[in-house]
Amino acid sequence: MTPERLRVILAEFKEGKIDEGQVLGLLRDLPYQNLDYAKVDHHRSLRHGFPEVIFGKNKTLEQTVGIAEALLAKHPNLLITRTTEQVFRNLHAKYPEAQFSQNCGAVSVIRDGDDRGRGRIGIFSAGTADIPVAEEAEITARAMGNRTFCCYDVGVAGLHRILSQLDELRSCTVVIVVAGMEGALPSVVGGLVDLPVIAVPTSVGYGASFNGVAALLGMLNSCSANVSVVNIDNGFGAGYSASLINRKT
Amino acid sequence: MTPERLRVILAEFKEGKIDEGQVLGLLRDLPYQNLDYAKVDHHRSLRHGFPEVIFGKNKTLEQTVGIAEALLAKHPNLLITRTTEQVFRNLHAKYPEAQFSQNCGAVSVIRDGDDRGRGRIGIFSAGTADIPVAEEAEITARAMGNRTFCCYDVGVAGLHRILSQLDELRSCTVVIVVAGMEGALPSVVGGLVDLPVIAVPTSVGYGASFNGVAALLGMLNSCSANVSVVNIDNGFGAGYSASLINRKT
Amino acid sequence: MTPERLRVILAEFKEGKIDEGQVLGLLRDLPYQNLDYAKVDHHRSLRHGFPEVIFGKNKTLEQTVGIAEALLAKHPNLLITRTTEQVFRNLHAKYPEAQFSQNCGAVSVIRDGDDRGRGRIGIFSAGTADIPVAEEAEITARAMGNRTFCCYDVGVAGLHRILSQLDELRSCTVVIVVAGMEGALPSVVGGLVDLPVIAVPTSVGYGASFNGVAALLGMLNSCSANVSVVNIDNGFGAGYSASLINRKT
Amino acid sequence: MTPERLRVILAEFKEGKIDEGQVLGLLRDLPYQNLDYAKVDHHRSLRHGFPEVIFGKNKTLEQTVGIAEALLAKHPNLLITRTTEQVFRNLHAKYPEAQFSQNCGAVSVIRDGDDRGRGRIGIFSAGTADIPVAEEAEITARAMGNRTFCCYDVGVAGLHRILSQLDELRSCTVVIVVAGMEGALPSVVGGLVDLPVIAVPTSVGYGASFNGVAALLGMLNSCSANVSVVNIDNGFGAGYSASLINRKT
Amino acid sequence: MTPERLRVILAEFKEGKIDEGQVLGLLRDLPYQNLDYAKVDHHRSLRHGFPEVIFGKNKTLEQTVGIAEALLAKHPNLLITRTTEQVFRNLHAKYPEAQFSQNCGAVSVIRDGDDRGRGRIGIFSAGTADIPVAEEAEITARAMGNRTFCCYDVGVAGLHRILSQLDELRSCTVVIVVAGMEGALPSVVGGLVDLPVIAVPTSVGYGASFNGVAALLGMLNSCSANVSVVNIDNGFGAGYSASLINRKT
Amino acid sequence: MTPERLRVILAEFKEGKIDEGQVLGLLRDLPYQNLDYAKVDHHRSLRHGFPEVIFGKNKTLEQTVGIAEALLAKHPNLLITRTTEQVFRNLHAKYPEAQFSQNCGAVSVIRDGDDRGRGRIGIFSAGTADIPVAEEAEITARAMGNRTFCCYDVGVAGLHRILSQLDELRSCTVVIVVAGMEGALPSVVGGLVDLPVIAVPTSVGYGASFNGVAALLGMLNSCSANVSVVNIDNGFGAGYSASLINRKT
Amino acid sequence: MTPERLRVILAEFKEGKIDEGQVLGLLRDLPYQNLDYAKVDHHRSLRHGFPEVIFGKNKTLEQTVGIAEALLAKHPNLLITRTTEQVFRNLHAKYPEAQFSQNCGAVSVIRDGDDRGRGRIGIFSAGTADIPVAEEAEITARAMGNRTFCCYDVGVAGLHRILSQLDELRSCTVVIVVAGMEGALPSVVGGLVDLPVIAVPTSVGYGASFNGVAALLGMLNSCSANVSVVNIDNGFGAGYSASLINRKT
Amino acid sequence: MTPERLRVILAEFKEGKIDEGQVLGLLRDLPYQNLDYAKVDHHRSLRHGFPEVIFGKNKTLEQTVGIAEALLAKHPNLLITRTTEQVFRNLHAKYPEAQFSQNCGAVSVIRDGDDRGRGRIGIFSAGTADIPVAEEAEITARAMGNRTFCCYDVGVAGLHRILSQLDELRSCTVVIVVAGMEGALPSVVGGLVDLPVIAVPTSVGYGASFNGVAALLGMLNSCSANVSVVNIDNGFGAGYSASLINRKT
Repeated sequence: MTPERLRVILAEFKEGKIDEGQVLGLLRDLPYQNLDYAKVDHHRSLRHGFPEVIFGKNKTLEQTVGIAEALLAKHPNLLITRTTEQVFRNLHAKYPEAQFSQNCGAVSVIRDGDDRGRGRIGIFSAGTADIPVAEEAEITARAMGNRTFCCYDVGVAGLHRILSQLDELRSCTVVIVVAGMEGALPSVVGGLVDLPVIAVPTSVGYGASFNGVAALLGMLNSCSANVSVVNIDNGFGAGYSASLINRKT
Repeated sequence: MTPERLRVILAEFKEGKIDEGQVLGLLRDLPYQNLDYAKVDHHRSLRHGFPEVIFGKNKTLEQTVGIAEALLAKHPNLLITRTTEQVFRNLHAKYPEAQFSQNCGAVSVIRDGDDRGRGRIGIFSAGTADIPVAEEAEITARAMGNRTFCCYDVGVAGLHRILSQLDELRSCTVVIVVAGMEGALPSVVGGLVDLPVIAVPTSVGYGASFNGVAALLGMLNSCSANVSVVNIDNGFGAGYSASLINRKT
Repeated sequence: MTPERLRVILAEFKEGKIDEGQVLGLLRDLPYQNLDYAKVDHHRSLRHGFPEVIFGKNKTLEQTVGIAEALLAKHPNLLITRTTEQVFRNLHAKYPEAQFSQNCGAVSVIRDGDDRGRGRIGIFSAGTADIPVAEEAEITARAMGNRTFCCYDVGVAGLHRILSQLDELRSCTVVIVVAGMEGALPSVVGGLVDLPVIAVPTSVGYGASFNGVAALLGMLNSCSANVSVVNIDNGFGAGYSASLINRKT
Repeated sequence: MTPERLRVILAEFKEGKIDEGQVLGLLRDLPYQNLDYAKVDHHRSLRHGFPEVIFGKNKTLEQTVGIAEALLAKHPNLLITRTTEQVFRNLHAKYPEAQFSQNCGAVSVIRDGDDRGRGRIGIFSAGTADIPVAEEAEITARAMGNRTFCCYDVGVAGLHRILSQLDELRSCTVVIVVAGMEGALPSVVGGLVDLPVIAVPTSVGYGASFNGVAALLGMLNSCSANVSVVNIDNGFGAGYSASLINRKT
Repeated sequence: MTPERLRVILAEFKEGKIDEGQVLGLLRDLPYQNLDYAKVDHHRSLRHGFPEVIFGKNKTLEQTVGIAEALLAKHPNLLITRTTEQVFRNLHAKYPEAQFSQNCGAVSVIRDGDDRGRGRIGIFSAGTADIPVAEEAEITARAMGNRTFCCYDVGVAGLHRILSQLDELRSCTVVIVVAGMEGALPSVVGGLVDLPVIAVPTSVGYGASFNGVAALLGMLNSCSANVSVVNIDNGFGAGYSASLINRKT
Repeated sequence: MTPERLRVILAEFKEGKIDEGQVLGLLRDLPYQNLDYAKVDHHRSLRHGFPEVIFGKNKTLEQTVGIAEALLAKHPNLLITRTTEQVFRNLHAKYPEAQFSQNCGAVSVIRDGDDRGRGRIGIFSAGTADIPVAEEAEITARAMGNRTFCCYDVGVAGLHRILSQLDELRSCTVVIVVAGMEGALPSVVGGLVDLPVIAVPTSVGYGASFNGVAALLGMLNSCSANVSVVNIDNGFGAGYSASLINRKT
Repeated sequence: MTPERLRVILAEFKEGKIDEGQVLGLLRDLPYQNLDYAKVDHHRSLRHGFPEVIFGKNKTLEQTVGIAEALLAKHPNLLITRTTEQVFRNLHAKYPEAQFSQNCGAVSVIRDGDDRGRGRIGIFSAGTADIPVAEEAEITARAMGNRTFCCYDVGVAGLHRILSQLDELRSCTVVIVVAGMEGALPSVVGGLVDLPVIAVPTSVGYGASFNGVAALLGMLNSCSANVSVVNIDNGFGAGYSASLINRKT
Repeated sequence: MTPERLRVILAEFKEGKIDEGQVLGLLRDLPYQNLDYAKVDHHRSLRHGFPEVIFGKNKTLEQTVGIAEALLAKHPNLLITRTTEQVFRNLHAKYPEAQFSQNCGAVSVIRDGDDRGRGRIGIFSAGTADIPVAEEAEITARAMGNRTFCCYDVGVAGLHRILSQLDELRSCTVVIVVAGMEGALPSVVGGLVDLPVIAVPTSVGYGASFNGVAALLGMLNSCSANVSVVNIDNGFGAGYSASLINRKT
C-alpha cells in the first residue's frame, strides 16, 4: 500500500466511486494484502537463482514426482533431498540429466551449470560416518552453482589431518564443517581461518551423544566466534546458506 | 607466521645466519604473549583480520584491563563484551576513544574506523527486551568496520511491522535476527529475503521458554533454508560471523 | 443416555409401564458399562453432548470393536481415533455408515448429522506432512456437528500463502493451526485474527525438532496472546476443544 | 484506531472537515507508532478488539510508561502485566482510574467497562499458592469486558472441594484452571463439564516439579479432551483466550 | 566381627598362633568380610518368603531357564518377569504348575499358595492400555502370597468410575495405582484413602508424555502425601513393595 | 448415591413429591454430589489420626498462622513444613508446646503423643548435608505418633558405616533412606533388609546432580525391588507414607 | 614423526642431502594414508603405542575391511569394535589369527601378544545384561597387551557378591566397573579400593533409566573420589584408558 | 590409622605395653569416629593412602572445623574443598601450616610432603575462567604428594597455544584437562598424547552451555579413546584420580 495507492482510494471515496464499507475493507488489511506477496515470492525465486527445494521425507512418490515435474517445467535446475531411489528412477526416465546420491538420498537435475559463486565452498567432515551429511551439503552447493572442495575424516583426534589441509581450507570463501560425537572440529577450524564457518552437527555417535545433541551443543558453544550452526544432519541448510554467502553480488 | 616468513627463516637457517636454537625460539614465541592467567593471541589478527575479543564475564578487573592493554599496545581496535562499567572507566582514563554500552556491557576502542564491509548488515529484533543482545551484535559489527541498519520490536504477532521494513531488509548483504520467546522471526525474515540470515535466540521469556531454549530450537528447525544459528544471547558471535560474510574480498 | 432418553424412562415409570426394578436396572449402568477391560462411559454424552471417543492405540481388535458396539447401541454417533483398517472393516460390515481415514486412522459413524456449531472451524496446516494431524482435527470437528474450512501447506517461509487466506481465516469462529518443525504458524495466525487459536504441534521434523518438542515449545511461548496448545500430534483434542468453543449455546 | 473512529475520519473527510493530508497523517501511524525502542501496535485493537497489552517484564520504567501513555492517548482501556508498583504510581498520578494488583503485578486502566462477554468465565485454582496466576487471568478477563467467577484452593487431593462447586462450574461458558505441582485439576474439571477448559500450569512446587514442567506435561497429556494449555504461569494468555471464546458475536 | 571374635584373634596373636601379617590381613577387611554376607543373604531369602525374582529381559532362553530351574530346586515358588512364551513352554513341560501372562510376559510357579498378607492389595488402573503393567503388579503380589482386588479403566476424566469403587478401595491395606498420560489418578486416590499408595507411571501416551515421563513427574509431585512412586512400567516393583507392606508380622 | 437413596427418590417422584426436573437435577450429579464428599473427608481426617498438614512455602505469615489456629482449634496435633521462624514465634506465644526445627523449617505442635505405630521407622542419610531432609521425615513420623531410629552419614563410599548398623536397620518396620549425589544408598539398604524402603533423593550435590535429578533417577532405577521413591527433598512425604505403613491396624 | 627423526631431516636438509621440496614432501605425507573415505592414522601408533582402532558402526563392509587391511599391512595388532560377523569372516579368511566376539561385535587380530601392563586390569559388571559392554572392555585391554580379571553380576542389591571378591579387586592396578540401571556399583567399588576406577554406564534398564542416562548421572556424581566415567556402553574407551594407566613405563 | 600405626599397636600389645582393653579401645573407632552429624572415616587412609577429604559445601563452620580437627589428630595431611575463608582462619590459628586458595575455596594442611608420585601430573585449562577448577585439581594432586605442571588458557580456538606445550604435555604421566563451553580441549589433547586424560567440564559459558552440560557431553563423546570424565567443576575428583594413577607402586 503506497501513499499513491492510498490517495487514489481516498479520491475515489470522496467522488463516491467506492463507499465507506469498501474503504473499511481495503484499509482493514492495509499492512498485508495489497503488498501482493505471491508476486514478490515469484520475484524471489527468480532472484534466488534457485527454485523451491523439495524435502522428500514424508511425501509420497506421487506428491514428490508431481511437484518435481511442476518445477522442472519452469526452472532449469531441481533439488530433492531425503527422497528414495524410486523417485529418482521415475524422474530419470523423463529427465536423463537427473542424478542420485545413494548416500544422502538426494536427486538433482542440473541443466544450467553456470558458476554463480565468488569462490569455493569448503566442506570438511570429522569422520567417515559423517560423509552422507557432508554430501548433502555438497550436492546442494553444487546444484546452486558453486564450486566445492571436500575433505573427509579429518577429526580432532588426529590434528595433523586437518592441519595438512590448511592451504586448501584458507583458499575457500566459506567453510562447512560436519561432525558428530563431540562436534569439536568446527571450533578448531574456526580458529584456523578468518572465514564464516557453518557447523553441521550429525547424529553420528551413541549413548550420551543423544543422536547429535552433544555435537549440536558443542557447536553452539564454540569458542571460535565465526561459527554458526544449523540443525542436526541438516547438510542441505548448510549448503544453502553457504551458497548465499558465496554468491557473486 | 606466513609461509613466506617461514621460507625466509628456513633460508636464513641454511645460510647460517641463524642457528637451530634460534629457529626453535622464533617458532616457539611467535604466536601468543603469556600473561600467566591468559595467553594473548596476537597471532589471531593475522589469521582473522581482527584482534582477539575479550569475553569479560568471569574475569577480574585486573585481568580484563591487563589483557586489554596488551592488545591495545599492538592493535588499533579493541572489543570487550560482557564487562563492567568499572573496566570501562579504567580504560577510558587512558584511552579516551573507549566507548561503553550500558545495555550489553560492551567496551569498544575504535582507532581505525575504515569501512571493511561490502554492504550493510541488518539487525532486527522481535521485541524491546531483545535490544541488549541486538546491540551487542551491532557494536561488534561496527567495531569490525561495518555499516549497520537496526530495527527493533518487529515480532511476528504484528506482521505489518516487519513487512513495512522490506526495502531496508532487502538492501542488506546479511541479516541478523534476534528473538526470544518462540523465536519465529528468523523463519519469517528468512522467507522474505535471499540473504544469509543469522538467528540469535535470546533468553527473553518465562516458563517453557527455558531461558531461550524454545527460541533456539525454533530457529534450528526453521523452515527457511537460509537460517543459521548462534548460541542463546550471543549477539557478539552473530555480529562477528556477519562481519566475515560482509567483508570486502 | 441422553436427557431425552432419561425423560422417557421417567415418564414410563410414572405411567407404570416399567417398574422400580426396571428403572434401577436401566440406571444401574448409567455412569458406565463394565466391559471388564473397559468402563464405557455412557454418562459422558450427558455431560459433554458427545459420547466417549475411543482412543484406538494399544487396544486389541476385540476391545475396540467391543467398546464401539456398546457405544453404538446407545448413541447415534461414534468416533475412534488412531485405529486400524481392520477395526474399520469389522464395523463397516455391521454399520455401513462407518467411514475410515487412511491418513490418521480414524473411524467415524455419523448417523445424526445435525449442525451444532455457531460458525465454521478453520483448520490450517504449515506443511504437507502435517495433514494427517489436521485431518484428525477435521474429522473430530465434523463428527461433533461442525462445519470446517481446511487449508494446508501455508507455512511462514512463504507468508503470502497464509496472507492470501485472510478473509477465510477471519470468517471462522475458532481456528486450529497445525505445524511441526519450528511451529511458528500459530503465532503468525494469532496476530492476524481476533479469534481463539488452538495450536497443534506435530512430530514432523528431524534432529533438534525432538519429535515435536521444538514446535510445542514455540507454541507455548507464542507472542500472540490468543494461542492455546494441545499435545503433540493431538488433532483430536484440538477438534474437540474447537467444537466446544463453536457450539451453539 | 477503532472502526468507529475510522468511520468518523472518513465522514469528516467526505464532508470536507479534514483534507487529504490530514487523513494521510492520521492513517500514517495506523499500523504502529514508532517509539524507537518499541513499535506500538495501534492497529491491534482493530484486529483484536482490544489494544496491545504491555508485558512489563524487562522494560524500564520510562519504556513502560511511555508505551502506556501512547496507548491511553488512543484507547479507553489498558493492561500492563508483570510490572512494578513504581510504574503504577507514575500512571496513577495521571490516570486515577488505574488499578494495581500486588499479587501479580498488573496495572489496569478501565474507562470503558461495557460487558462484552456471552457469559461468565470461571477461574479455578488448585492451591493457595496458585492465586497470583489465577488473578492475572481474572484481571485480564475483566479488563476485556467479561464477568468472572473465581474459586481457589480446590485441588484434587480433596475432591469434595471442586465437587461442591459443580453448579457454579457448569454455569460458565469457558473455564480457566490454574494448578502447579502435578497439575491434575484440569483433567478432573475437564471430565466434569462440557466446556472448553484452558489449563494454566504454575511454577508452584519444588524438586521434580522443575518450575512447572511437571504440571505443564500433565496438562498436555490430559485424558480429558476439552483441555488446551498455555505457558507456565501465563494467566494473561488464559484470560485473553477465554475472553475471545466468551465474546459476544 | 564381634568383640568376641576380636578377642580371640588378639589372644591367638599374643600366643604366637598367628603372626602380625595374619592379623593385618584379618583386620584389613574388618568391616565387611567377616560378616559373612552370603549366609546373611541366605537368611534373607528365607525370611522374605520369596526367592530372587528373575528379570527376563536381555537374558537368553538358556540363561533364564537355567536360573529358574536352580531356584525351583530349592524354593516352592518362582516368578520371572518380562520373559517370552518360549521360556514358559520350556518350564511348563517340566513344571505343569507354571502359568503365563500374555499381557505382561510373566511366568509364575506357585506351589506354596499360603496367604502371607495382612489384608488385600488394591490394584487400580486409569486406562485399558495400562492393564499389562497392572497385571504384572497383580501377579507379583499373588506370587508373594497376597490377595488382590483389581479394578481397571477408572481414570480421572470420568470421576464417577473411581468414586463408585470407594468401599472396595478403602477395604485394602495398601493400594497400587497404575496410570499413563498425565498420571493424575494416584493423587485422586491418595486423597480418598488413608492408606499407603504406590503409584506406577506407565509409558502409555504419545507426544509430550515422553514415554511415561509426564506421568512419572505428575506422581512425584502429587499433592497427596501418601503417594510414593516406582519406575515407569514397573508393575513388579509396586507389587513387591506392596507385598512387604501387607505382610503379616 | 446408594441404591436405597435411589429408591427413595424414585418413590417420591412417583408419589409426585418431586417433579421430573428435580429428578433430573438429582441424577445429573449422581456419581459425585450425593456422595457428600465433604463429610467423607471429615471422616477421613478423623481416621487418619492426623489433620491436614500445612505446606508453609509460598504462604504469608497471616495465612499460615490463620490456618494453623483453625486446625489447632479442632485437633490436638499440628505440623507445618517449610515455614519460617517468625511463624513459629507467633504460634509459640499462644501454643507453648510448639517446637521448631531450624534445619528444615518445620513447626510441630504435639499435644497427643500416643504411640500409633506398629514398630519403629528407620531414617538413614547418606551424608551430613542430607540431614535437613532426613529431619523433616523424622519430625513428620514423630508428629504422627511413631517411634524413629535415625542414623546419618552412612553413604556407600564407606560401606562399613551402614553395615555396622545392620541390627538397628533390620529391627525397623519400614525404612526411609535419604541421599543426594548418586543416590545409591537406598539400593544398598534395599538389598540388606526385607522391609519396604522409601527413598528420598535430595538436591545435595553440584554439576550433573542437576539439583537432585541424578539421585532421583538412581532411586527410580534401583535394582532392589523393595524401593519406592518420593519427590526430591520431600522428607515430609516419606515420613507420611512410612507412618501409614507403620500404623497399627 | 619423532623429534629425533625431525632432527635428522633438518640435518640432511642443511647438508644438502635433501632439498626444500623433499622436506615439505616428507612432512606432508607422513601422518596418514588417504583412502578417500578415511584418513588412516598411521602416526597414531607412534603417539599412542597402539594403532588406530576402527569403530565399525556406520561403516560399510568395504570401508571396514579396507581400513583393516591398510592397518594390518603396517601394524601387528588390530581392533575393530561394533562390527559384524561378515567383516570378521572376510578378515579371517586372510588373517587366521582374527577372533570375533559375538557379544560385543569386536574383531581382534593379535600377532604381537607381549605383556605391556604393570599389573592386572579388573573388570566387574553389576548384572548379567552388562556383560557385552564388559567384554568390549576386556577385549580392548587384552588387545593392548594387558592381563585382566573379570567378574560379572556383582551388583549392589546383593553386596556379599562384590565383598567376596575383595582380594581379587585389590590385587588389580586399575578397575573397570560396568553397570546399568542406577549405576551404583562404581561408588561401592570406589569406596573399597585405593585404585583408579573407570565407570562405564550401560543402557541396560527401562523407563526412567533413559537408555543409560540414570547410570551415567549416578557415576558422574559418585561420592567416591576415585571414579571417572566414559560414555554409555563405551567398554572400548574404558579398556583403552585402563590400558594406558596399566602400561609399564 | 596407617599400617605403620597398626604395627606399632600390635607390637606394644605383644610386648605387654598395652593390654587387651586398650587395643580394643584403639581399634573400636577404627572404621569411623561418630561425630553425630558425621561418621569420620579413619579407615579410609588404610584403604586409600589418604585420609577422608572434607567437602565443605553445605557444612557449618562448626561441623567443618570439628571434622578437620578429628582428622588432623590422626593424620598428617588434610584437604577441605569448597569451604570458606572463615574455616581457614579458624584452622590456621591452630595449624599454621594451613593454606587457603581464594580461587577454589580449598584449605590444605600438608605436614608430610613426601613425593608419592611416579612422575608429574599435567593440568591444562582451556580458558582463564576455568582456572579455579584447575586449581582445585592442582591443590588436590599436590596434597596427595604429587608434582604438577600447570598451563592455562590454551583452548582450541588458538591451537598453537596447546601445540607449543607438546613437550611439557608429553612429559607427564597423566593429564587433567579442564574446559567449559564446548569442552573440545580434552579431545585435542587426547589425540596428542599416549597418556590417560581426565577431562573436567566446567560450568563456564552461557546459554546453551547449560552450566557445563555442553562441555560434559562433548567430553563423554570424545573421539579420543583415552579420555575419561568427572562431574562438572569437579577439579577435586580429577586430582584424586590422577594421583592414584601417578602413584608409585
